[in-house]
Amino acid sequence: MNKGRVEAFSDGVFAFAITLLVVTISQPNDYGHLWHDLSTRWPSLAAYVVSFAIIGIMWLNHHSVFAHFAKVDRGVVFFNLLLLMTVAFLPYPTGVLGQALARGAGERTAAVFYGVTMTANALAWTGLWLYASYGRRLLSTSFPESERRMATLLFSAGAVVYAAAIGVGFVNAYVFLGLQGLLAVYYMLDPLSRRADRARHRGDQTGEASGA
Amino acid sequence: MNKGRVEAFSDGVFAFAITLLVVTISQPNDYGHLWHDLSTRWPSLAAYVVSFAIIGIMWLNHHSVFAHFAKVDRGVVFFNLLLLMTVAFLPYPTGVLGQALARGAGERTAAVFYGVTMTANALAWTGLWLYASYGRRLLSTSFPESERRMATLLFSAGAVVYAAAIGVGFVNAYVFLGLQGLLAVYYMLDPLSRRADRARHRGDQTGEASGA
Amino acid sequence: MNKGRVEAFSDGVFAFAITLLVVTISQPNDYGHLWHDLSTRWPSLAAYVVSFAIIGIMWLNHHSVFAHFAKVDRGVVFFNLLLLMTVAFLPYPTGVLGQALARGAGERTAAVFYGVTMTANALAWTGLWLYASYGRRLLSTSFPESERRMATLLFSAGAVVYAAAIGVGFVNAYVFLGLQGLLAVYYMLDPLSRRADRARHRGDQTGEASGA
Amino acid sequence: MNKGRVEAFSDGVFAFAITLLVVTISQPNDYGHLWHDLSTRWPSLAAYVVSFAIIGIMWLNHHSVFAHFAKVDRGVVFFNLLLLMTVAFLPYPTGVLGQALARGAGERTAAVFYGVTMTANALAWTGLWLYASYGRRLLSTSFPESERRMATLLFSAGAVVYAAAIGVGFVNAYVFLGLQGLLAVYYMLDPLSRRADRARHRGDQTGEASGA
Repeated sequence: MNKGRVEAFSDGVFAFAITLLVVTISQPNDYGHLWHDLSTRWPSLAAYVVSFAIIGIMWLNHHSVFAHFAKVDRGVVFFNLLLLMTVAFLPYPTGVLGQALARGAGERTAAVFYGVTMTANALAWTGLWLYASYGRRLLSTSFPESERRMATLLFSAGAVVYAAAIGVGFVNAYVFLGLQGLLAVYYMLDPLSRRADRARHRGDQTGEASGA
Repeated sequence: MNKGRVEAFSDGVFAFAITLLVVTISQPNDYGHLWHDLSTRWPSLAAYVVSFAIIGIMWLNHHSVFAHFAKVDRGVVFFNLLLLMTVAFLPYPTGVLGQALARGAGERTAAVFYGVTMTANALAWTGLWLYASYGRRLLSTSFPESERRMATLLFSAGAVVYAAAIGVGFVNAYVFLGLQGLLAVYYMLDPLSRRADRARHRGDQTGEASGA
Repeated sequence: MNKGRVEAFSDGVFAFAITLLVVTISQPNDYGHLWHDLSTRWPSLAAYVVSFAIIGIMWLNHHSVFAHFAKVDRGVVFFNLLLLMTVAFLPYPTGVLGQALARGAGERTAAVFYGVTMTANALAWTGLWLYASYGRRLLSTSFPESERRMATLLFSAGAVVYAAAIGVGFVNAYVFLGLQGLLAVYYMLDPLSRRADRARHRGDQTGEASGA
Repeated sequence: MNKGRVEAFSDGVFAFAITLLVVTISQPNDYGHLWHDLSTRWPSLAAYVVSFAIIGIMWLNHHSVFAHFAKVDRGVVFFNLLLLMTVAFLPYPTGVLGQALARGAGERTAAVFYGVTMTANALAWTGLWLYASYGRRLLSTSFPESERRMATLLFSAGAVVYAAAIGVGFVNAYVFLGLQGLLAVYYMLDPLSRRADRARHRGDQTGEASGA
């Protein structure tokens, strides 16, 4: 089981899913009043931007997380396929949410649907992490032991936050979409690797580094 | 003829086909009753999940099988293109089956159509294996001779099983879809490489290993 | 200008275009009579198979041709982009031809349109070859000088044959589609590299090899 | 943060976006008068060709620019994602512009919309350059200092020119489309790397080379 190939395949799915998002924005109908027609579609554009950010940043963090794995096995590939399925599926709820907001009908249902997809994604991340980090089975020796439990907590908290965001979708779809964008920005900061780096740095200074 | 390039091109087709599956789920019509509309589309989602699993696991096994080839030639590329054609085509019967189940019309025809596609895929696999393993022409020396006939039998049996599944499609499309999912799970276990590994392991212990 | 990157980008376009072909087969309308509906779409499937073979085999020959180049420059990239444009465009005339044949209307116009696309592709190949081989500017030293003129002739003849095939499209669209399939099979044999190999082999035996 | 992976992901998005352009050309309606139907769609084909050239040439220049970077960080990835978003979005305004021109309605609105997308793209380029070149933070030592300010000026001028092109869109959509094609041809010449090469060459001759 070659880690590089799993990453290359994942990269392909991320790159294709992010590019395919554009087909979720429906074509204009009324070319006689094109300006008006396009301007009513801005929620589709907003959903596009948020989903683009989510997939782009998740691609980035996918590399960060896999960099902490010393090797991969069939179990990792299985959880990774679950993860990629939620990524590859995201264009569908993105299109539905953009349409619902543009039409002013079914917005909250669409937001909940989008939120369920993102929660499934967060659960796939958590499952992948738990599977790979349990007993340090697949973790690289350079990943600080002190951060392993914290990382597990961060992944689990992520799943809880995404589940809670579904509740926001039940209330207001615009707030929900903004929240999804904010969560993407948070993950842009790559909390996991930053914590690991800091812990390694502390370890280097105190002579407690747990590997190289 | 470079094996790495054939694999990279195949990876690309697998990654794109698996991501393109999402466009097989038709967009909702009735945003006024979006929850009801989406809930009637669950068979499309089920067909999506099964086809995603099939392509993802087949990508995995594609690597396993090619790892047993010492080199590739134009004939391998030809059988591989046949194989990729059935993979790249799969989104079409997936969409038809999902729609037929959602509409409650033409389900068994759609299942048979899907089953014929999968049987063509299994035949392409069998052809690829027979072509490459005949007389060990392209097989790696580390592939145990004792497993070559068994592998041929496994590939042939696979084609027979997929052909038999067409018969299930004639009877019940839901059972057919579940069966396709089960077959994917079976191939997740990678029976071919596991057997080869065991045989090599036995060989190592008894001093009969046929290469490295 | 890195040859490997030009090839990787080209591989991506080939792999994506070949996978995107599946969306050219229009979805069934009549699920109540799905068998009849699908059976009237066989010409779309035939056009799909022919275009899949064309793109797959062209991908193969793209590597063969680039293997004869010692390096690439902006001019090669320009001709290569022209070439990729005709490849990436092929799904459109494929869809039109399949639809026209299925509906029994506009078949010959659709065949001519497909033929013009393939002729533009053949011209892009010829341009690429002439640009890269003129004065052996970019040719690898291992490409036999004796085969350079013959290769130029083969590429030019290819353009003439594809242009002549347009004439067949004016007469009968089914014969035209079969002819396109036969031409793909011919290029499967990779006449250019086979000739070059033979010439090199002769050279090796007579001490006239022009490089390694 | 691995530069090669950022480039590979970007290559994927460029390759998929350029191939996905073909779905922006709408299918014919009137197969009974297919020749007439197809001939009214030539503006869609023209928009396709221009966008294909833009993305293909931008892919080329993406490599040129990244070759001047010694390394990349999260900020580069952020600006690069912005850049890729405008590239991946381009198929949408391309489809709208082609349709508007073919229908003879909403042409100038469609041109302005396309122009705004290209201006956003130019701004992403300028932002990427300013971020990476400021204080030579990420620039390769072989990039001549004398060219750094000129490059900043070139990128900024590019953003101004694309913004000015929006004004042309307000006047005439055909002239606008031609202008976009001309701008693509200008960037085909890769003004940045040519200037840098010339400056390095002068430096080599006078003993002032700023690195290797």
